[in-house]
Amino acid sequence: MIKLRMGMVGGGEGAFIGEVHRSAAALDGEIELVCGAFSADPECSLRFGKQLGLPASRVYRDYQTMMSAEAQLSADRRMQFVAIVTPNHLHYPVAHAALDAGFHVLSDKPATLSLNEALLLREKLQATNLLYGLTHTYTGYPLVKEAQQRIAAGELGAIRKVIVEYPQGWLVEREEQAGNKQASWRLDPERAGVSGCFADIGVHAANLAEYVSGLKIEAVCADLTPMVEGRVLDDDGAMLLRFESGARGVLHASQICIGEENGLKIRAYGDKGGVEWSQQEPNTLWLKWHDRPVQMLRAGAAYLGERATANTRLPMGHPEGYIEAFANLYMAFAGQLRDRHAGVASHDHNTDCPGIEAAIRGMAFIELAVTASASNVKWHRLQSY
Amino acid sequence: MIKLRMGMVGGGEGAFIGEVHRSAAALDGEIELVCGAFSADPECSLRFGKQLGLPASRVYRDYQTMMSAEAQLSADRRMQFVAIVTPNHLHYPVAHAALDAGFHVLSDKPATLSLNEALLLREKLQATNLLYGLTHTYTGYPLVKEAQQRIAAGELGAIRKVIVEYPQGWLVEREEQAGNKQASWRLDPERAGVSGCFADIGVHAANLAEYVSGLKIEAVCADLTPMVEGRVLDDDGAMLLRFESGARGVLHASQICIGEENGLKIRAYGDKGGVEWSQQEPNTLWLKWHDRPVQMLRAGAAYLGERATANTRLPMGHPEGYIEAFANLYMAFAGQLRDRHAGVASHDHNTDCPGIEAAIRGMAFIELAVTASASNVKWHRLQSY
Amino acid sequence: MIKLRMGMVGGGEGAFIGEVHRSAAALDGEIELVCGAFSADPECSLRFGKQLGLPASRVYRDYQTMMSAEAQLSADRRMQFVAIVTPNHLHYPVAHAALDAGFHVLSDKPATLSLNEALLLREKLQATNLLYGLTHTYTGYPLVKEAQQRIAAGELGAIRKVIVEYPQGWLVEREEQAGNKQASWRLDPERAGVSGCFADIGVHAANLAEYVSGLKIEAVCADLTPMVEGRVLDDDGAMLLRFESGARGVLHASQICIGEENGLKIRAYGDKGGVEWSQQEPNTLWLKWHDRPVQMLRAGAAYLGERATANTRLPMGHPEGYIEAFANLYMAFAGQLRDRHAGVASHDHNTDCPGIEAAIRGMAFIELAVTASASNVKWHRLQSY
Amino acid sequence: MIKLRMGMVGGGEGAFIGEVHRSAAALDGEIELVCGAFSADPECSLRFGKQLGLPASRVYRDYQTMMSAEAQLSADRRMQFVAIVTPNHLHYPVAHAALDAGFHVLSDKPATLSLNEALLLREKLQATNLLYGLTHTYTGYPLVKEAQQRIAAGELGAIRKVIVEYPQGWLVEREEQAGNKQASWRLDPERAGVSGCFADIGVHAANLAEYVSGLKIEAVCADLTPMVEGRVLDDDGAMLLRFESGARGVLHASQICIGEENGLKIRAYGDKGGVEWSQQEPNTLWLKWHDRPVQMLRAGAAYLGERATANTRLPMGHPEGYIEAFANLYMAFAGQLRDRHAGVASHDHNTDCPGIEAAIRGMAFIELAVTASASNVKWHRLQSY
Repeated sequence: MIKLRMGMVGGGEGAFIGEVHRSAAALDGEIELVCGAFSADPECSLRFGKQLGLPASRVYRDYQTMMSAEAQLSADRRMQFVAIVTPNHLHYPVAHAALDAGFHVLSDKPATLSLNEALLLREKLQATNLLYGLTHTYTGYPLVKEAQQRIAAGELGAIRKVIVEYPQGWLVEREEQAGNKQASWRLDPERAGVSGCFADIGVHAANLAEYVSGLKIEAVCADLTPMVEGRVLDDDGAMLLRFESGARGVLHASQICIGEENGLKIRAYGDKGGVEWSQQEPNTLWLKWHDRPVQMLRAGAAYLGERATANTRLPMGHPEGYIEAFANLYMAFAGQLRDRHAGVASHDHNTDCPGIEAAIRGMAFIELAVTASASNVKWHRLQSY
Repeated sequence: MIKLRMGMVGGGEGAFIGEVHRSAAALDGEIELVCGAFSADPECSLRFGKQLGLPASRVYRDYQTMMSAEAQLSADRRMQFVAIVTPNHLHYPVAHAALDAGFHVLSDKPATLSLNEALLLREKLQATNLLYGLTHTYTGYPLVKEAQQRIAAGELGAIRKVIVEYPQGWLVEREEQAGNKQASWRLDPERAGVSGCFADIGVHAANLAEYVSGLKIEAVCADLTPMVEGRVLDDDGAMLLRFESGARGVLHASQICIGEENGLKIRAYGDKGGVEWSQQEPNTLWLKWHDRPVQMLRAGAAYLGERATANTRLPMGHPEGYIEAFANLYMAFAGQLRDRHAGVASHDHNTDCPGIEAAIRGMAFIELAVTASASNVKWHRLQSY
Repeated sequence: MIKLRMGMVGGGEGAFIGEVHRSAAALDGEIELVCGAFSADPECSLRFGKQLGLPASRVYRDYQTMMSAEAQLSADRRMQFVAIVTPNHLHYPVAHAALDAGFHVLSDKPATLSLNEALLLREKLQATNLLYGLTHTYTGYPLVKEAQQRIAAGELGAIRKVIVEYPQGWLVEREEQAGNKQASWRLDPERAGVSGCFADIGVHAANLAEYVSGLKIEAVCADLTPMVEGRVLDDDGAMLLRFESGARGVLHASQICIGEENGLKIRAYGDKGGVEWSQQEPNTLWLKWHDRPVQMLRAGAAYLGERATANTRLPMGHPEGYIEAFANLYMAFAGQLRDRHAGVASHDHNTDCPGIEAAIRGMAFIELAVTASASNVKWHRLQSY
Repeated sequence: MIKLRMGMVGGGEGAFIGEVHRSAAALDGEIELVCGAFSADPECSLRFGKQLGLPASRVYRDYQTMMSAEAQLSADRRMQFVAIVTPNHLHYPVAHAALDAGFHVLSDKPATLSLNEALLLREKLQATNLLYGLTHTYTGYPLVKEAQQRIAAGELGAIRKVIVEYPQGWLVEREEQAGNKQASWRLDPERAGVSGCFADIGVHAANLAEYVSGLKIEAVCADLTPMVEGRVLDDDGAMLLRFESGARGVLHASQICIGEENGLKIRAYGDKGGVEWSQQEPNTLWLKWHDRPVQMLRAGAAYLGERATANTRLPMGHPEGYIEAFANLYMAFAGQLRDRHAGVASHDHNTDCPGIEAAIRGMAFIELAVTASASNVKWHRLQSY
């Protein structure tokens, strides 16, 4: 098996998500980082690329140069796909440039700065017939997949209620004024878009709710706000949800829930059974029943379904975490790429990486969250595009 | 110390909450059950009273008879207060009759069938100058009091966000048609009032949110529904909350969250710290901070405040539960009564039993939940009466 | 139903376990405290009895007076049994005096100061044909009974391994020199006997291990020590266990495990399944399997066995605790007494209170723990008496 | 930074630990797998090496060939160290051959088949002056390092008691006869040595106890046994421990605790505070105190010490797991290697990988466990070599 060749845009010194992407790509030994444009500052990019052990010739001063230079390399040397790990406002232009140059794209979320950009991106993808993946990390966890599969198989009956929450506390003070890079761009409308908290994590919660339940959100009633004085974008919000099936739900996300870490959690209740999963203890999935004891399912167990098993590396009791979940998305995207090269249809279990439809849905959700919150009308429809 | 003499209306064979009241009253050895009218069926009442070891002369065929007969007993023999543990629709008439006959009242919640009845009850109380207590059980837990005290003392700073939830699963099927008494009256508008789930448990959640945070709910945006076909009253619902202080919140309660037991849980986040408490593990209170480790406070610990300590019977690690929390309300109500008899002002720590104001607030909340849910306007103001 | 009449020896001002006994006796409304000798100091006894609302005539200056005075009361007035809640050294003399005067006995553990006293007590019981109960609290928890029943029914297969632990931390410093009454007598050989920690809590752990597993300890290998300088009796210890069936085990108990509360916990593993139960979260029982998910059983659930159900008062999710477990022992002892009075054989489910055989076994265990610890021979046989 | 070049012996198709080593080595992008002899069967080795993307020329038929062939490559191409991931009986011969050929060694544990081999290995290392690392995985977790550091700094005072346990359940049935490779060699004296469970996991527990507490085990009292019929080597055991400092302890490990996964857990109690850490929730460390609330420390938090921080990749709430802990050992070993190449003394924080002294200590512990268990003398001294 020859390693797939990856390029990276963004993710230089001090970036959090860039390092996660690199670790996730490296973990299973199937992908090799071959080039990058790691920073808006060309010097930083070069220094950082060297630190990563890349040859100077493959570290670029900007993404435009990278696209054209890589395109001129021989087919067996040039990168095969680009991982985009910049702040939000660059997702679209970088993806566009990559596609123009003939490279597949694996992008961090949210996909773009606006719904409109996401729709344009879809057009571009259709025109180029290239692959696009979106790293909604949390669907990469094996027990999230187990929950999804069991619900899809009808084991819990018809889902009636979905409660998804995502409390964080790291923005409880004005970190964005204290030199915290992660905070400053996420709260800056120019770089983050119309929303802070909901573009950053609320969209993960919505994605997870739809993924696990198999239901589509039909309408939302929202209340978002910047809770900390001086902010323009929301750092906190909550929603009532109605699903197309008639199920109802609650979604809340916040970055000012002091002392909370990365508390994404989902509960879904059907008429036969329920599930509960928490990101901070990702190797446990709870199944709940009316007349039988709660069951604790554990990653790596023999009783889990095919999809969970295919996305687990270790035996029970050997915890896997965030990087491994992320690596599962990379593995799925790599599987698609290999299938594409081999000219075969993608197998179900290795195509489980969100794509452009999830990207559009996410952007529609973010924009609706903001619109609905500002309105005094209760319900706002989440449209399909 | 002479025991206080209690009468009881309701709580016969198969009743859940009546037995809880009796246990709670008995636990600390300060209250004696001396009489009762335990059932709408006089024979049942007599049989049950006998089973409790009461003399036949003090077991009554109905509450009206009880009030007049007890009133004619000598002052040192007759009951001093009535515990009302009937279905909701009888709370008001029984309380009214008791007050008329000169007896103090300790009532299960919700206080009445409607807000209007609660307002009339307040007038009656003012006219008779008798005591009234409402058993909002959950404020009786020592660590709920600890949370309340720490927030009141400013330890968590200004509260920004309150998340309160109360999932249950016992009404996931149509228990009310399967001979389950508890279910049948709670889902019957005649006996339960305008709401099912929110009159039964949503109101506990709202009470807890206001009690712990020290904030007043200003407005709600609600979505209640009977999720199980064939029901008239809500068995599920969720709310966005706005507090007068500017804080925001989420409240959800349900009786169709399959596999959930009695999952009342509150989280409140200030600008300095946060708290988390769950009814199912009531002896633990979590304090959360921005830059310091989460702390686990435990009932019975020496570091707890005066109020928690006064409401705890056992050393750390010896779990207390629901009956003990209930007994704390009884202890507080008994303390008020003793102070009244002694002609002294009630001490703070032994007067911590909700009263008529909580009763009115609860009924206003319940009625607003239903109104707001039916409306397409987003926000509905919770008025003070 | 007429209440049973209880007298109490010990349990005055500041005593922990006396109050627990009173609450446990009161909880279910079947037992009434009618008299007591609450303190070695007659004045304290009188003052305390008054505080409890007892008539002065039934509060005695010492237990000897109490026995003779009560014996002279009419059969329908005098106490029917004595609850003994003194320090250990008085358990035997008080029990002896009570039996001599014709009263049944319910005693706190350990039963006596020495194995020899326990054997003499058995002779006395045989001679008087009166009832004797021993409050090994922890077997009163409903889910401990569930575990016992499931193992007895063979659901877990043959038990191979039992791990029981009981860490506490309250004696981490020399509390016994700082005026802590609980500490001072427990560490005083005159009042506690040959062991501190193992007489106080190690014996609970051993009792629980045998009760739950249904196995008999055959031999122990022990290492006990006073870990805090200046103490004579052990405050910490550990044991390897061998059971008669060939199963093996570990038992450790300590009062110097800083920060631990009352951490009694048992795990038992068979060849088909395992159980885990922790006293600090007593309403949960874990069942473990080889090829199926772990199950979480919860107190109050419909799927529990008869014995757990008979010892539970509340629906699922309404936590019961230590006092309720204690009350279950009282309920069982009261059941025996009522059956005795009614002249019927005791029913299994209401006779579940440990008796003189458990008392003797406990004392044999305590003495063996000390002997075995002092020896350089590895294994020491736990004999039956 | 140029990647370090690693060779691997063992770890072919279906091996668990080989894949872990490869992932751990890959995770941080500092190490490259360049060659291997993956199986005793040359064909399997070749096929597997190809699957890993290695050139056929660097996949060897046996480890002897690998050592000599690699030694002949140019210094900038040949591997720099060998990862040994075979069953136990090959650890020593492979390490010996690698050292003979001039390669550093990173070996899985236990280091050798016997104490004597471990002592010979030390001599060989002294003669060759090459590096040796031993992958005692669990010391790689950041919060284990935090516990170690806090105890070393005296924060918990003098340690009095250490409780370490390691229950697993995967050998509850005779997996070794059902084609389970992992089971078959671990229970075969020829390949595993004198012990099954204690060579496999008991030794991890002992290593962790000494690492975290900073204390040396002085003597053990042991009871090991094959609990499942037909086995020769222990699958279960327990020990009482005495430490040189006077502290005492308990160690138990088992592979027949049905339903348990990989339950390594340590608790250490000093006279000022205590710690608790569980491998299955490795991102949490509990600190316990006498008069203050328990604290929950979380991986990634700013309040953690330098060593924990240096061994963590992600912010709080983003779980890291077993592979990351393993990668920390690789990172430490790689740090030593780089320092060696750079001619500088190894920095403390990047040399935190166990070496030959831990290897010898582990083998002495395993052999003593077996000897002590077979003896009827209680205490057996753990000697230093």
